[in-house]
Amino acid sequence: MVRTALLAACCAAALGVTAYAADMPAAADQAALEKSFDANLNPKELDGWMKLMASEPNHVGSPHDKQNAEWVLQKFKEFGWDAHIETFQVLYPTPISETVELVGGKKPFKATMQERPIPGDTSSRSKEYALPGYLAYQGDGDVTAPMVYVNYGMQDDYKALERMGVSVKGKIVIARYGAGWRGLKPLLAQMHGAVGCIIYSDPANDGYATGASYPDGPARPPQGIQRGSVEDMTLYPGDPLTPGVGATADAKRLTREESKVILKIPALPISYADATVLLKAMTGRVVPGNWRGALPITYRVGPSDLKLHLAVKSDWSLKPIYDVVAKLPGSEYPDQWVMRGNHRDGWVYGASDPLSGQVAMLAEAKSMGEMVKAGWKPKRTIVYLSWDGEEPGLLGSTEWAEEHAAELKKKAIIYINSDNNSRGYFFAGGSHDLQHFVNQVADGITDPETHVSIAERHRAGTRAQALEPSAREEVKAMAKIDADPKKDFQLFALGSGSDYSTYIEHLGLPALDIGFGGEGDGGGGDYHSRYDTYEHHSRFDDPGFVYDTLLAKTAGHMVLTLANTELPVVQAGDFADTMALYLGEVKKLADHRREAAEIQAKDIADHVFQDTYDPTMTNGMPTALKPVPKFDFAPMDNAVKQLQKSAKAYDDAFAADAAKLSPEARAKLWAAIQPLDQTLAPENVGLPGGRGWYKNLVYAPGRWTGYGAKTLPGIREAIEDERFDDATKYIGATADALNAYSAQLDKATAVLKGG
Amino acid sequence: MVRTALLAACCAAALGVTAYAADMPAAADQAALEKSFDANLNPKELDGWMKLMASEPNHVGSPHDKQNAEWVLQKFKEFGWDAHIETFQVLYPTPISETVELVGGKKPFKATMQERPIPGDTSSRSKEYALPGYLAYQGDGDVTAPMVYVNYGMQDDYKALERMGVSVKGKIVIARYGAGWRGLKPLLAQMHGAVGCIIYSDPANDGYATGASYPDGPARPPQGIQRGSVEDMTLYPGDPLTPGVGATADAKRLTREESKVILKIPALPISYADATVLLKAMTGRVVPGNWRGALPITYRVGPSDLKLHLAVKSDWSLKPIYDVVAKLPGSEYPDQWVMRGNHRDGWVYGASDPLSGQVAMLAEAKSMGEMVKAGWKPKRTIVYLSWDGEEPGLLGSTEWAEEHAAELKKKAIIYINSDNNSRGYFFAGGSHDLQHFVNQVADGITDPETHVSIAERHRAGTRAQALEPSAREEVKAMAKIDADPKKDFQLFALGSGSDYSTYIEHLGLPALDIGFGGEGDGGGGDYHSRYDTYEHHSRFDDPGFVYDTLLAKTAGHMVLTLANTELPVVQAGDFADTMALYLGEVKKLADHRREAAEIQAKDIADHVFQDTYDPTMTNGMPTALKPVPKFDFAPMDNAVKQLQKSAKAYDDAFAADAAKLSPEARAKLWAAIQPLDQTLAPENVGLPGGRGWYKNLVYAPGRWTGYGAKTLPGIREAIEDERFDDATKYIGATADALNAYSAQLDKATAVLKGG
Repeated sequence: MVRTALLAACCAAALGVTAYAADMPAAADQAALEKSFDANLNPKELDGWMKLMASEPNHVGSPHDKQNAEWVLQKFKEFGWDAHIETFQVLYPTPISETVELVGGKKPFKATMQERPIPGDTSSRSKEYALPGYLAYQGDGDVTAPMVYVNYGMQDDYKALERMGVSVKGKIVIARYGAGWRGLKPLLAQMHGAVGCIIYSDPANDGYATGASYPDGPARPPQGIQRGSVEDMTLYPGDPLTPGVGATADAKRLTREESKVILKIPALPISYADATVLLKAMTGRVVPGNWRGALPITYRVGPSDLKLHLAVKSDWSLKPIYDVVAKLPGSEYPDQWVMRGNHRDGWVYGASDPLSGQVAMLAEAKSMGEMVKAGWKPKRTIVYLSWDGEEPGLLGSTEWAEEHAAELKKKAIIYINSDNNSRGYFFAGGSHDLQHFVNQVADGITDPETHVSIAERHRAGTRAQALEPSAREEVKAMAKIDADPKKDFQLFALGSGSDYSTYIEHLGLPALDIGFGGEGDGGGGDYHSRYDTYEHHSRFDDPGFVYDTLLAKTAGHMVLTLANTELPVVQAGDFADTMALYLGEVKKLADHRREAAEIQAKDIADHVFQDTYDPTMTNGMPTALKPVPKFDFAPMDNAVKQLQKSAKAYDDAFAADAAKLSPEARAKLWAAIQPLDQTLAPENVGLPGGRGWYKNLVYAPGRWTGYGAKTLPGIREAIEDERFDDATKYIGATADALNAYSAQLDKATAVLKGG
Repeated sequence: MVRTALLAACCAAALGVTAYAADMPAAADQAALEKSFDANLNPKELDGWMKLMASEPNHVGSPHDKQNAEWVLQKFKEFGWDAHIETFQVLYPTPISETVELVGGKKPFKATMQERPIPGDTSSRSKEYALPGYLAYQGDGDVTAPMVYVNYGMQDDYKALERMGVSVKGKIVIARYGAGWRGLKPLLAQMHGAVGCIIYSDPANDGYATGASYPDGPARPPQGIQRGSVEDMTLYPGDPLTPGVGATADAKRLTREESKVILKIPALPISYADATVLLKAMTGRVVPGNWRGALPITYRVGPSDLKLHLAVKSDWSLKPIYDVVAKLPGSEYPDQWVMRGNHRDGWVYGASDPLSGQVAMLAEAKSMGEMVKAGWKPKRTIVYLSWDGEEPGLLGSTEWAEEHAAELKKKAIIYINSDNNSRGYFFAGGSHDLQHFVNQVADGITDPETHVSIAERHRAGTRAQALEPSAREEVKAMAKIDADPKKDFQLFALGSGSDYSTYIEHLGLPALDIGFGGEGDGGGGDYHSRYDTYEHHSRFDDPGFVYDTLLAKTAGHMVLTLANTELPVVQAGDFADTMALYLGEVKKLADHRREAAEIQAKDIADHVFQDTYDPTMTNGMPTALKPVPKFDFAPMDNAVKQLQKSAKAYDDAFAADAAKLSPEARAKLWAAIQPLDQTLAPENVGLPGGRGWYKNLVYAPGRWTGYGAKTLPGIREAIEDERFDDATKYIGATADALNAYSAQLDKATAVLKGG
């Protein structure tokens, strides 16, 4: 809130109290608690911890991964927590051999699959067991074929390829990173008949165009390689062999062939130094403007005259992963869990990703431990989770959640996630009934660069983005909300790409993902490369560990508030408003698609496509779009209306009556609120198309965006994918879920009203 | 019209007749005429003429410029035309010395100001008097200063610079070509306090990114330089010393210092090979994403640590220009002139620009000459104009128009312009009351690549463009019109950049600009360079001179129709509809600007800008936008309403009664229609801000776009430039002009109705 936040710049601590006072009892106690908590945070410790944990490669299966788990366990114990390691056995392939070579060129060319050490970066020299360029869960193979450049290799790019009259059938596609999750690139290539896939980091998106290259600046150097997972997480994340259940030693397992989340074609990531050679060898049409990267060449679509030889052979054995689980038992409500997690495994040294968030979490744990030693007791149980195996596919968090699903559904009141962190703006995504809570915490924390609250700076960031010439309509709409001091700033919707996924999308638990970032030129150039080192992080991403410490402070305040509050922090009106917004978007989408299909049908009838063929080039016709019916949105309209009514009733009743509740009534209120968000993820529905693991009907990662969220996914994606019967079916199912939420909320309102 | 045009693919000639039959008497005669005309067109002749005319540099003042004038005169005479040369004496600077060098670098660096000959292009070797890289009417000077990269150097870029906290005061700006007319780049630099300006062709816009570089493909090679004029044509075009009057030997002249259209700071164009060295020397902030070009560097905004030495010294003497004026006298209405022009001067060899259009015009003249020799007589006088000095500032066309203004206002019924031409889509801009006429002609001509009519292909082109992900709303709106078979395809509005400007914008005459283009990868890479040669044109731009011949056919049909028709071709409804469209745009603009000013005011009040400063970079505050008042658009609303009424009355009366008119009534009708468009350019108003030479209140080049048109410019630009009193004033003045148009049209309607 703008005004509050402006004042907060002068006297943040005092105002933190004021902000809390309105909604939360015992504000003075909370302020005192936060003061003690903050006093224990020390950036120098975060620095030291990262240096140690990032000193050697720590990917799944590496010696240092296990060492780090044991070290973190030890730390939690030192801090006074009740901690243990929980081990799972997961399918985790590692490369035995990799080949990317041009066949029949004038000069032989072979891509380099491991980065060279970089002068001035001691870490990057270390250890020979560092993972080379690799894409976990690609399909091994040995193919030789012409190449086709497919831009980002996403759905729209295949539509453009159709118009260019170029097929990838029997070819190896070359895709650049960006515009969607990496795993979709080989998947879409495979679905279109390609026999292999190369992904590279184009300097337009991730290299010299964005800033000076490492070590002169933070941007990706020519030889930098982005590793990553291509497990088809849009079907389900976690161990590919044990969907839905914990990958314990004795779990029932699919065979590798049975698993639907492992690709069938070989795929490898390469650097832009190497990609330049391949792209220079391309022939065929010059690409459209939005397909061009920043290499000093004429980008052509192919197929190439020269062939590429791509071969990958992996070790497909099971490997152990080590989750560290640490608890501070609750003194009054031990069976209500406040959960907080961050992963610990990297692709190589993993300094920014994930250790920047991991060391923040350790700092929180240490500080809380000190407070416990000084006599403080959390009312609820605090559970800290140091995940392993996030990088290959959220393995540690998913297997643990699947193993403990029943208990979590009963006990968890929130899961707060973080991951890589750096200098800049506060960001927060998650369950929209937690929006007001997040705003309250963020209003009370001061940004060290601008001395306004991190909420205020976040709002300023959205508003500044909306002024950019290329700003999308959604950003402008969000900026409008964020500019209104009477409104909370908007949480973004969660998709995938970090450990919150299973908690919110499979179990339906309330969840948040928070962090800082977005400042500096060319940040992120170390992402998933050998150069994501302590040196890179401390020089460019968060000098002085200022923002990593700020993450600890922010997450810590959230955890402390939730561990101690007598009353739930849900503000249901935010959720209802957001659902109304999403429903409006989905309706607009349907109209937009209907119009597009009508225009295209007319264009086809009038042979617009043939009439624009350039006879000196390859050309092709687009696939005809299906006519889009008029959907009956009435069930959703009614559900959203009811939700808004129920939400207002709850929020009003809470404001009027919550403070007066007896302890028994409070217990009843918690009992009504704890399962509230789970109504959005009914057990027996799930998303269609092999995505039944995803139960949440409000938040999901997009089937064709990967990390990017799709809200009201059953409806929205059905419209996008032309599954129009599904759209109608999920209008009903999603409305049912919202109605269940409203009904559950009504129970809480009844408690507030003395029922 | 889609359906007609589809049929036209099969039997174009017959349908040409049908299309004309509805509106124009003597359709069969016209069809026969066109058949004879077409039979005389021979692509081989165009080829030979271009080869000859482009064999040596032909810029103003060059020996070959004069030789070409004399040769063209001779040709017209051979063709049986009454032809002469009209000479003007214009200020035309030519370079004596030019320097662009880095000062204080490790290695000395000097930019190369003339392109090397290219293997396989015989022409590019020719003659040492070829003009080097140069910008006509820059201000001579000798300066040494740090550099600032300003992206395209347009208004929005200076707003972005403000936010980046970088000033160009006392600096030399480096701007890339694109996003607006070149002349505005040094002008805006000068207005912001810069002491010099370098413009270069970035390969993102014009080089290897767009296609293979010459000679492998058509795109600009690293050493290619775009010459051009930077005369401030947005104040007035033509000879800088004789605004408003012909630059005859004895004309009254301003001094060079008095002329407002000559820049005060030195400016030069360079190649991207040379620009790379300068841009690599830049320091300071990394540029925003939309400021990046395609060079393999990190683009930085500066100011640079190193300084640039920029020096230009020119010969500012008067030079002669030679307009060739050729006539075929009208047999029945000799005082009604059908005018057709194309310039003849290039920057170096000028093959595509302008000789591709010039040889088309010669082919038309030859064919008409043959027809005259065979006994045909045009009813109206046909005037063909081979302009000199277009490149430096529309000198030939402007001086001739100013010299003959009174006669032209009395006699001209149209001016049809063309310029450079190449393979691809038909395009046509101009007076919207000629829209139906243009459609009729275009419906009758077949595209040689697709075998549909050029109208149909034009429509398909717009519709295909509208399907691009980046398509602007205006393109989508235009595609909607172009997809409607009941509607004519839309003419674009004329701005500046070729010889129609003075005719439509200063004299208010009906005018058209037509041509073909837009196909092939990297076309236009020869633009204003030494590589705009016969070899480049015939290899890449129009192999076989197919589309240059098609231009002759298209323009020829227009001229023949207009020379012979008994009745005017005006369809007033198209003009009225277009005015309604423009008024809607202007209102939207006002609302949009009002909202933007409100948002910015709130952003400033909430210190959004300071809160988004990155302390590791330079930062700055934007200039506050003025609050935008609510304008009273009633005078324009009423004028457009009246216009639509008068237009409908005229079009209906024309359809019902025109064919029945007596010769005397027809003469009266012509007398009412001939001055119709001139009502839009009242003598005593003109545009504000030193732009009074621009009289047309409907069509003008934008003050801050240069070539790009601004429609209803008095109103639109006043809103854009925050001259809100002017907006109100020009709402009145523009409404008056539209009312005068309606009143004039009513006179014609009265004639049709027997008045």
